[in-house]
Amino acid sequence: MRQPAWGFLFPGMVDILRGARQRDSKFMALLVMKFGGTSVADIERIGNAARHIKREVDAGNACAIVVSAMADETNRLVELTRKASALHDAREYDAVVSAGEQVTAGILAIVLQSMSIQARSWQGWQVPITTNDAHGAARIKEIATEELKSRLGRGEVAVVCGFQGLAPDNRITTLGRGGSDTSAVALAAALGADRCDIYTDVDGVYTTDPRIVAKARRLERVSYEEMLEMASLGAKVLQTRSVELAMVKGVRLLVRSSFQAPQDCAAMRLDGNDSPGTLVCDEDEIVEQQVVSGITYARDEAKVAILNVADKPGVAAAIFGPLADAGINVDMIVQSVSDDGALTNMTFTVEATQLDRTLETLKSSRTEIGYADLHGSSDVVKVSVIGIGMRSHAGVASSMFRALAEKGINIQAISTSEIKISVLIDAAYTELAVRTLHTLYGLDAA
Amino acid sequence: MRQPAWGFLFPGMVDILRGARQRDSKFMALLVMKFGGTSVADIERIGNAARHIKREVDAGNACAIVVSAMADETNRLVELTRKASALHDAREYDAVVSAGEQVTAGILAIVLQSMSIQARSWQGWQVPITTNDAHGAARIKEIATEELKSRLGRGEVAVVCGFQGLAPDNRITTLGRGGSDTSAVALAAALGADRCDIYTDVDGVYTTDPRIVAKARRLERVSYEEMLEMASLGAKVLQTRSVELAMVKGVRLLVRSSFQAPQDCAAMRLDGNDSPGTLVCDEDEIVEQQVVSGITYARDEAKVAILNVADKPGVAAAIFGPLADAGINVDMIVQSVSDDGALTNMTFTVEATQLDRTLETLKSSRTEIGYADLHGSSDVVKVSVIGIGMRSHAGVASSMFRALAEKGINIQAISTSEIKISVLIDAAYTELAVRTLHTLYGLDAA
Repeated sequence: MRQPAWGFLFPGMVDILRGARQRDSKFMALLVMKFGGTSVADIERIGNAARHIKREVDAGNACAIVVSAMADETNRLVELTRKASALHDAREYDAVVSAGEQVTAGILAIVLQSMSIQARSWQGWQVPITTNDAHGAARIKEIATEELKSRLGRGEVAVVCGFQGLAPDNRITTLGRGGSDTSAVALAAALGADRCDIYTDVDGVYTTDPRIVAKARRLERVSYEEMLEMASLGAKVLQTRSVELAMVKGVRLLVRSSFQAPQDCAAMRLDGNDSPGTLVCDEDEIVEQQVVSGITYARDEAKVAILNVADKPGVAAAIFGPLADAGINVDMIVQSVSDDGALTNMTFTVEATQLDRTLETLKSSRTEIGYADLHGSSDVVKVSVIGIGMRSHAGVASSMFRALAEKGINIQAISTSEIKISVLIDAAYTELAVRTLHTLYGLDAA
Repeated sequence: MRQPAWGFLFPGMVDILRGARQRDSKFMALLVMKFGGTSVADIERIGNAARHIKREVDAGNACAIVVSAMADETNRLVELTRKASALHDAREYDAVVSAGEQVTAGILAIVLQSMSIQARSWQGWQVPITTNDAHGAARIKEIATEELKSRLGRGEVAVVCGFQGLAPDNRITTLGRGGSDTSAVALAAALGADRCDIYTDVDGVYTTDPRIVAKARRLERVSYEEMLEMASLGAKVLQTRSVELAMVKGVRLLVRSSFQAPQDCAAMRLDGNDSPGTLVCDEDEIVEQQVVSGITYARDEAKVAILNVADKPGVAAAIFGPLADAGINVDMIVQSVSDDGALTNMTFTVEATQLDRTLETLKSSRTEIGYADLHGSSDVVKVSVIGIGMRSHAGVASSMFRALAEKGINIQAISTSEIKISVLIDAAYTELAVRTLHTLYGLDAA
């Protein structure tokens, strides 16, 4: 029997749930704990994850767990579908690749039971987690929580398959790569959880990539807005969509390491102080704001330059219309006037994987656009500085440009928002630029 | 949405379905085709299976496919659950091990689509194939066929996960090892299929194991009753339960090789003549009956001898009662009077895996039973001759015993039914006994 759907989309539901919890107060807090692929890579690591869960259960918390497939398992399954046929039915792709989460959930439930913890696994269709029918990149519509809540209230740990959903026609969907983060946040929102803990292979969000800057520091707290920019501008620690959802739903996220010995960390305080990781929360919860919180870089963009096009109305439409029709997303755009004044150069970036298709599209529209030359290059990197403090501090951009210029780094394109500045530079300068900016904004650890 | 259940348990349903098929007559015949683990072991073999399916589709047949997990995948998953905990929750075991079939079904559907055949995968819970809640060894209660039938009628190939079912509480069940044969037969019965083709790694059912007797012959046809005895007495080609179900439901089974090049075999005639495999059917369909159809052997039994127990009422109960309580199945039983007449010896067989537990149980009941000595040995084999012709031919047993005696083979226990005779002998004589009997009953190929 399916339970009546009770989804997280109903406004006020979080309050209803919180109210219900306070009334019976069977548990201290309701936590969603998400374990990624490397955190459940083998039986030993699954055992470690189980001990993290036991610590929270022993502290009196109700725990809903979200798991990914064991590391590399999803890749193995994706590869199988690719071998079966290069162009495959997304519905069958979803049926195949969702098998990995199913295995992890069952195994983790068994391990928890062997530690005398009541637990059961839940596949997406069993909850159900209903989605739209966009197979391979589905969006969650509703999560039925009645049965889950009742079992959590009785002390049972729910081990839910991340990544999976159920389409309206009763077929399995998946949420796209990294979708388990989104599953966890959506479940936390639907359950009105006190916190959503993302266990991963790093111990938090850093001011920048520690492989490039040895003095990178772990952030104790970071606001949703900053995390969203960091995730979409190159920080790999959280999937962008999951941060967006957390922000909209007000889900407090804690990014922490599953590799830390479970017995070495106390169950975390709900206020997030003395956190063993990074708390992603509302900016109001962050007392000491830095002007800049982090520096990111992304190598997955490519630059396209169109030389000597007419500087007249309609030329932008002639360029970007066909690209939009071809499903190509354009990011940074720079228009520069050429020597003779009547012609202009147009530079912009696209995803590196779409560079070839972009150039082909532009070549076939050459007559309509009317340009002298066309260049494409994937030898660029987008370096970004991100910080909510920029809103109230002028001069971040100019100090950034000056510092890069002093190191001889040429800026090829710029894009800005209220809380971030991104520059496109030659990829060879990536490390130099990141280190320079990390020092410039006072982010280096003492 | 779940379809209203329409199960194979309703009497007369086969006729209703056949009637419906004849009315619209969109396809020549409705076939269920089952591919076992070695037949879908990798992408190449899945491609070969797909070409067998294409041949039948091209011949105008409607095809419902049942697949196992890719070879060794189920073993890998079982091993994972074992590593997670020696004593595990059967419901979680089922959730984990059922993942293998899900992958095969999706991949086969993709491969079929790439050959321009309409196809979709069906997991047990999607059909649904409802079972009881005996996780790990569930029994099918009902298969909903309305949606499947409608799609088969439109020319779509249904690729159904074998082995899987859905318990009343919406959790996944599995039918036990080898359960995909049972899935295929149950589906064929529910759909009123014209035939159920079991594609495997051998090209049919043989008069005996060809690895022991080079002159073993493939049987063109064999009756359900004989196949049932063969399966339960050591022939590995079909799961016993699936044959039983086929007999009860009147499903014609064709056992054939998936390794044969698909293009080398024409779509088989429905009457089963010129078959590329072995047709398992009603004995009425078999024109030339042999007295003996096959010789099997099974090494998976162990012998227990209890020496010098009192020959009085109640002693059998004292022995076999505790064994039944311990869930130990006893097969052959021989009681022989000992020298002094008041005491008797009791010899019987149990599954070899249960020998240790049997001996422990009997030792702890020694006072109640009152015996002088207890021996256990797994160094025995059960050799059986099977044939429906035995019903009308006397003397099969006596010729068997004589032939074995002439070779110096001592018979330790005997059990018989209307169509089979089994003897327990020293395992060292296995090959000699099988070859002797194969020649004795005229089964050697010319």
